[in-house]
Amino acid sequence: MSRPSLREPASDPSPIFAALGDRTRLSLLLTLSDGQSRSIASLSADTQLTRQAITKHLHVLEDAGLVSSIRIGRESRFAYSPGSIADATSYLATVSAQWDEALSRLRSLVED
Amino acid sequence: MSRPSLREPASDPSPIFAALGDRTRLSLLLTLSDGQSRSIASLSADTQLTRQAITKHLHVLEDAGLVSSIRIGRESRFAYSPGSIADATSYLATVSAQWDEALSRLRSLVED
Repeated sequence: MSRPSLREPASDPSPIFAALGDRTRLSLLLTLSDGQSRSIASLSADTQLTRQAITKHLHVLEDAGLVSSIRIGRESRFAYSPGSIADATSYLATVSAQWDEALSRLRSLVED
Repeated sequence: MSRPSLREPASDPSPIFAALGDRTRLSLLLTLSDGQSRSIASLSADTQLTRQAITKHLHVLEDAGLVSSIRIGRESRFAYSPGSIADATSYLATVSAQWDEALSRLRSLVED
């Protein structure tokens, strides 16, 4: 059996990407990134989604480190958390940089 | 029923993120972003994955526009395709920019 020689990302951002793989969650995250924390009731009132559906989506985002929650009395409020987006952006930047390098090498070859 | 007022992303990059939500696919994409096209046999030889598994992952990446395939004789070769990464990066940049603005507003409030 040959040793694996695929390039591995430094960390594993795949759970972050998986959490972003849903249109409703992308909308929730974009909404929360304005820096205001929100309750499930408020997010549910802003959409046609049930509290149950909103709760499920927020927990997926929370498990991926994309939002954080704080309990005030009997109410949970959810806020944007910037760390995971940075990890996901970092992976995409590495891929793009490697591709840009490949294009530059190709251009040099053509010009030489 | 209230009108939805969540912020919607301009396009819908969620299928791209879903395709990125797997560690093996992140490795395959990082490998292919060096600009070399590769056959399934070559990618399979580089890993401990069967051709069947590699094929399945490559098709998920292809459906999301992250790789393209070209058939040369009886062999399919797969290459990195940069458009979808740009769409995914654009969503993450919008979220980060909105968050940065929120932090700036907060800083101004504290300083005033």
